[in-house]
Amino acid sequence: MSMNAPRGTQDILPGTSEKWQYVEEQLADLCRRYHYKEIRTPIFEHTELFQRGVGDSTDIVQKEMYTFEDRGGRSITLRPEGTASVVRSYVQNKVYGLPNQPTKYFYMGPMFRYERPQQGRMRQFVQFGIEALGSDDPAIDAEVLSLALNSYRELGLKSLKLVVNSLGDQESREAHRAALVRHFDPHREELCADCQVRLDQNPLRVLDCKKDREHPAMETAPSILEYLNDYSKDYFEQVKQYLDVMDIEYVVDPNLVRGLDYYNHTAFEIMSEAEGFGAITTLSGGGRYTGLVQEVGGPETSGIGFAMSIERLLMALEAENVELPTDEGLDVFFVSLGDEANRTAVKLTDELRRAGIQVDKDYLGKKMKAQFKAADRLGSKFVLVLGDQELENGVINVKNMASGEQQEVALDGIIEHMQKELTGGK
Amino acid sequence: MSMNAPRGTQDILPGTSEKWQYVEEQLADLCRRYHYKEIRTPIFEHTELFQRGVGDSTDIVQKEMYTFEDRGGRSITLRPEGTASVVRSYVQNKVYGLPNQPTKYFYMGPMFRYERPQQGRMRQFVQFGIEALGSDDPAIDAEVLSLALNSYRELGLKSLKLVVNSLGDQESREAHRAALVRHFDPHREELCADCQVRLDQNPLRVLDCKKDREHPAMETAPSILEYLNDYSKDYFEQVKQYLDVMDIEYVVDPNLVRGLDYYNHTAFEIMSEAEGFGAITTLSGGGRYTGLVQEVGGPETSGIGFAMSIERLLMALEAENVELPTDEGLDVFFVSLGDEANRTAVKLTDELRRAGIQVDKDYLGKKMKAQFKAADRLGSKFVLVLGDQELENGVINVKNMASGEQQEVALDGIIEHMQKELTGGK
Repeated sequence: MSMNAPRGTQDILPGTSEKWQYVEEQLADLCRRYHYKEIRTPIFEHTELFQRGVGDSTDIVQKEMYTFEDRGGRSITLRPEGTASVVRSYVQNKVYGLPNQPTKYFYMGPMFRYERPQQGRMRQFVQFGIEALGSDDPAIDAEVLSLALNSYRELGLKSLKLVVNSLGDQESREAHRAALVRHFDPHREELCADCQVRLDQNPLRVLDCKKDREHPAMETAPSILEYLNDYSKDYFEQVKQYLDVMDIEYVVDPNLVRGLDYYNHTAFEIMSEAEGFGAITTLSGGGRYTGLVQEVGGPETSGIGFAMSIERLLMALEAENVELPTDEGLDVFFVSLGDEANRTAVKLTDELRRAGIQVDKDYLGKKMKAQFKAADRLGSKFVLVLGDQELENGVINVKNMASGEQQEVALDGIIEHMQKELTGGK
Repeated sequence: MSMNAPRGTQDILPGTSEKWQYVEEQLADLCRRYHYKEIRTPIFEHTELFQRGVGDSTDIVQKEMYTFEDRGGRSITLRPEGTASVVRSYVQNKVYGLPNQPTKYFYMGPMFRYERPQQGRMRQFVQFGIEALGSDDPAIDAEVLSLALNSYRELGLKSLKLVVNSLGDQESREAHRAALVRHFDPHREELCADCQVRLDQNPLRVLDCKKDREHPAMETAPSILEYLNDYSKDYFEQVKQYLDVMDIEYVVDPNLVRGLDYYNHTAFEIMSEAEGFGAITTLSGGGRYTGLVQEVGGPETSGIGFAMSIERLLMALEAENVELPTDEGLDVFFVSLGDEANRTAVKLTDELRRAGIQVDKDYLGKKMKAQFKAADRLGSKFVLVLGDQELENGVINVKNMASGEQQEVALDGIIEHMQKELTGGK
């Protein structure tokens, strides 16, 4: 028999896992500097949370969720995204009542959507995201945009495009919604079946439709920017001013919409413009929302956040030929021969490791020559050799693999010696 | 309405997440030194993997798995442990054919078991574990034991007990099994219903029964150690010798058994002996196995591994009053007042962050005094003040919150200045 990982999931093996570790460390450090702190929420939640928090009418909830009953008969769902869980946690733990506000979180972990797997789209994928809850200062929108962009820039990506838009406040959105219905209603019969439903339920999502994107009415559709009231206009102006003072380049795209009622004001996406990056150029998206905290049982609170897929980030790094500075080498390989030498090698290997040094040895009963070969293959910086002869003389032979230099070091001084060798005498 | 996280799961919030980060970093560094590399496998697998890899007759598979059908009608299961997935990945990716052997992996991530939640037992819990595949050198058993023990010791735990046993090879286990049946058969009717089944299917598991532990036949049950053949005896002796040369203390407990046929030779557990640690004293367990790789479709390969729950590790640290050196403070809080000053604060905050400095600012439109209060509450090391006055003079007021010292620094030199202040002039 043979068994594989489920379709749309993957194993991340050594050689690749170092890249993930590096990227995650960099992102965590970025969040540290921006003072966003880590939150970890469960892998699954009550299904109702996503029905309410992501939205019943979305593709995610209707088609893509991993939903099942647990052994207690409760409907639970593997999280398809991070925001709903973060907001649920914020409410459940009454974080809105704590003195330090806004609350600034980051999260990193697997999410699950049952979609047709393709390049850069997995059924289990890893999202890094942030949420800032409890402030509607345009400066924090700019902060989120800066963090989002820098998360790519600091890793070395250059071909990036930041697209921003404003969805306005509720009043603005209602005016725009009415205008959209007026605009598309004469063409109702020409639109796809989904869009005919959208036109009644959520006309903004018509603008997002992949099937109808070539319909002539799309191009002349009323823009949200024409319907922003004064408050919304001023809010958007301030966000853009802050981006300007931070020297962040952006493009305003009035067609950048988000289908849910929760979203308001700032919406944005970051795209890769690298050649050969593939069909889906969006790296991440985010925006401001209101009403979500209330939907989950908390007080009226607005928030802003963004999320990126690490898989797509790694693809973009590859498309731009960015090499991540990960070290897969080995500091020391311990070669030994003979029962007594083997026992001493086990002892010293253990001591070296406890002293902070990376060491490996043979566990296949190989001859000395084959052990050297293994050390070489593993890219070991040093090889320590202990045979009967060395044991008798109370020494270890230390070979620097880069220079070829060899020296004999007293057994009881080997730890200090290797510490010096590996830290360059520091 | 109100919505909570599912029973048996938890949110890890800032203040606690730093502890998790610290522990995970330490464990990853320990693995680096022992040359175990990270593998990440999917959160769910085909159900059959665990039926085969964990064992159809186990409580885990029979009662505790989160099993469901995905939208394609395939039975999938949230992983209840790590070994089966690691072995599946090892086989699927044909890692056994690579030149560097044994293959030494570590993993860290959420696991899922539907059990009655209690202190230190969650339905979603995080396991750290290692697997070494492809060697049956007793020295690697000792290495795994050393890593397991040091993962606790290096974090500061002292009240630890290492219990080891040998389950022998197949021949030894069969001899022991026959002896167990002979021993318990006269008492069959006195044992619990489960044990009556176990006696036929897997008599070793009778020794593990919680209900029958007081039965007098338990104490006189034949020990596996009496049935070890020469090879198994010698293997166990070598493991113990290696532990001795590494100065690792241990207790041999012939009743330490593992119910699955896969397990052979070395078995071990690490317990906490800290007072007030609670009823379940086991921190982690592990052992050697054979046949598992074959069961999943690979060539005959033996392995050894261990796994610990991070939740229980954190409980043990608390029971021993070990404080983890996590820093939840803040380097710089930027206080500003006035539109122009606010814009400059946004600009400089961004530049400071990009220069490696941790900065936060007000996003609630607070007055200056309240901003200072916030800085204080966040434990900020420095406060930068920018008002109209400072702006006019082209300076920023820098206050060291520990010493109370203040100084004016030119706006265009603030980044270098703060870098020096925060690295102590380095």
